[in-house]
Amino acid sequence: MNKLEILQSRLSGIADCGIIEDDINRRYFTGMKSSAGTLVVFPEKSYLLIDFRYIEKARSTVKDCEVMLNNSGTAGTCKTVAELMDRHGAKSYALDDFTCTLENFKTYKKALGERKPVADSRFGKLIREIRSVKTADEIEKMIRAQRVAEAGLEHMMGFIRPGRTEKEIQLELDYYMLSHGAEALSFDTIARAGSNTSLPHGVPGDKRVESGEFVLMDFGAVVEGYHSDMTRTVCVGRPSDEMKKVYEIVLRAQEAAIAGLKAGITGANFDAIARNIIEAEGYGDCFGHSLGHGVGMEIHEEPYGTPRNPQPLPEGAVETIEPGIYLEGRFGVRIEDFAVVEKDGCKNLTLAPKELICL
Amino acid sequence: MNKLEILQSRLSGIADCGIIEDDINRRYFTGMKSSAGTLVVFPEKSYLLIDFRYIEKARSTVKDCEVMLNNSGTAGTCKTVAELMDRHGAKSYALDDFTCTLENFKTYKKALGERKPVADSRFGKLIREIRSVKTADEIEKMIRAQRVAEAGLEHMMGFIRPGRTEKEIQLELDYYMLSHGAEALSFDTIARAGSNTSLPHGVPGDKRVESGEFVLMDFGAVVEGYHSDMTRTVCVGRPSDEMKKVYEIVLRAQEAAIAGLKAGITGANFDAIARNIIEAEGYGDCFGHSLGHGVGMEIHEEPYGTPRNPQPLPEGAVETIEPGIYLEGRFGVRIEDFAVVEKDGCKNLTLAPKELICL
Repeated sequence: MNKLEILQSRLSGIADCGIIEDDINRRYFTGMKSSAGTLVVFPEKSYLLIDFRYIEKARSTVKDCEVMLNNSGTAGTCKTVAELMDRHGAKSYALDDFTCTLENFKTYKKALGERKPVADSRFGKLIREIRSVKTADEIEKMIRAQRVAEAGLEHMMGFIRPGRTEKEIQLELDYYMLSHGAEALSFDTIARAGSNTSLPHGVPGDKRVESGEFVLMDFGAVVEGYHSDMTRTVCVGRPSDEMKKVYEIVLRAQEAAIAGLKAGITGANFDAIARNIIEAEGYGDCFGHSLGHGVGMEIHEEPYGTPRNPQPLPEGAVETIEPGIYLEGRFGVRIEDFAVVEKDGCKNLTLAPKELICL
Repeated sequence: MNKLEILQSRLSGIADCGIIEDDINRRYFTGMKSSAGTLVVFPEKSYLLIDFRYIEKARSTVKDCEVMLNNSGTAGTCKTVAELMDRHGAKSYALDDFTCTLENFKTYKKALGERKPVADSRFGKLIREIRSVKTADEIEKMIRAQRVAEAGLEHMMGFIRPGRTEKEIQLELDYYMLSHGAEALSFDTIARAGSNTSLPHGVPGDKRVESGEFVLMDFGAVVEGYHSDMTRTVCVGRPSDEMKKVYEIVLRAQEAAIAGLKAGITGANFDAIARNIIEAEGYGDCFGHSLGHGVGMEIHEEPYGTPRNPQPLPEGAVETIEPGIYLEGRFGVRIEDFAVVEKDGCKNLTLAPKELICL
């Protein structure tokens, strides 16, 4: 079954009709990128309503559902949805509660009259459950995205030196990835140096790299809509003994978590593998974020590798493994790969080396 | 009155309490950028609930409301909102229907029990009405953003030549703006050449510029959260007579619209100034988008200069003026400035020249 057929086959019991409007989910199920359009899903068939700007492309590329022209905006969409529901004998409809705005919900509710809205989140959860299991085709795109990012990292090894600013490092890395196959950046590249590495996130600034400092880069490339995500912390000049020690603990925690990542482990237990090692070394208070998150058409998506997730990670999920230790005002280390969750382990999609690099 | 006081003073009659969660509106009213937080507004006072990552910054920079620490996520936010409503004797609350998801609405509804949700869009409309009128401070930021973009355009005049690809032009312009004061790009830069200029939007690709072709660039810079927006169409080599004629018509339509832009004109009548000129020249079918849109903390915001907007444009709005003529499969021209709407006219924030440049 293709993705849309899976969604159709699991719609019964939730609602007679499912309506998808947001760009990412629509692209996921139809395979076509557009900035507008509505996917209308019934157990037996689906329809893509789309305007003149995209109709030609939709007719030639979208195969799994019927493509219908809609040049009358929201009013036209609502009217067509009502007609399709009647044609399919559908009495109830569900929107994706996680992306549908209250305004949009009210518009449908008014236009669809006595047809019953189902707003219990189950349709949205089903969409995310399907999306969390990647196909071979999706994984292949993420691998290509990751290779672009890795080429960028290698390029940066010749660029980073004392005197470079964080902003210069960010822009050089971005320019490299965008001119070597990335259609976009996965997110705003993080490039921090020195004591700024102790802030897990934050915007690159005018701080100049000095000898003896860490440079932390968290970045990714997008290829055909799919994201990569990686973090590397490198040292410019010679690291102190404490920097080496902290780096070694983070790396050990990360490798243990990779070794323990497999289908069926809960998000919480996965997170705990790395957290326990960091806590045992006395740095528990210095790891203030989750171990990982799913990656796909969004940079952060389900399933989450966090203490708050009691659900098992499914086979086929792509998950980041990114422990960190941040010593406030001094330095921080984060090391991040991403991997496909498999039945008895995981396949790391990241090839970049992880031993401490000193430039 | 500051922005938050304006919102507070106009809340009565809509609801006893207004809740703002989205990043842009929260930043607009508090002046502080963050990726999480909730602004709770009462007629007499407002509160910013924010987590440990931002609390220090909030306490030192946010002056117009009380800053409260919330480290318990959504549950903590809901609990505090309930307590604040009780403290203020508030019986009803409104969310921003245009950004609040159905999921979030349900969470509040459940947590706030018998307190009454007001979901009639008026609170969201009030927010946008306030945002559409810019302060001198906001305009000054947009001018700085525009100067960065104009420096980028000037730089590109020495870069564009036959053989350059669209993608190379895009990346060079982006890199220039980002390394000369832009904190971000206003949107994905459009850089098209030759027959691709007939597509009003679209992604830069591997198409190489040839002599005798138009290059169309639509781009902007962000400074302190505020966007600029401009489009220029230049010719590489010698344009044909038809290219010159179409360029002249678009320019004439654009200058007429600027001359007619003033407070009180409706969005539709503003759009019609340019559209009538283009139609009179027989190109009415080749101008398939609206004349303009508001610009501010978002690249597209109210008020809209479109045939579908019967509302008058307010004094203080910042509006784009961007007519175009697109001849399918051959070439297209768009010229875009942005200007502050004033009582008896407008002040153009764009200084870049508009006569046809031939490189």
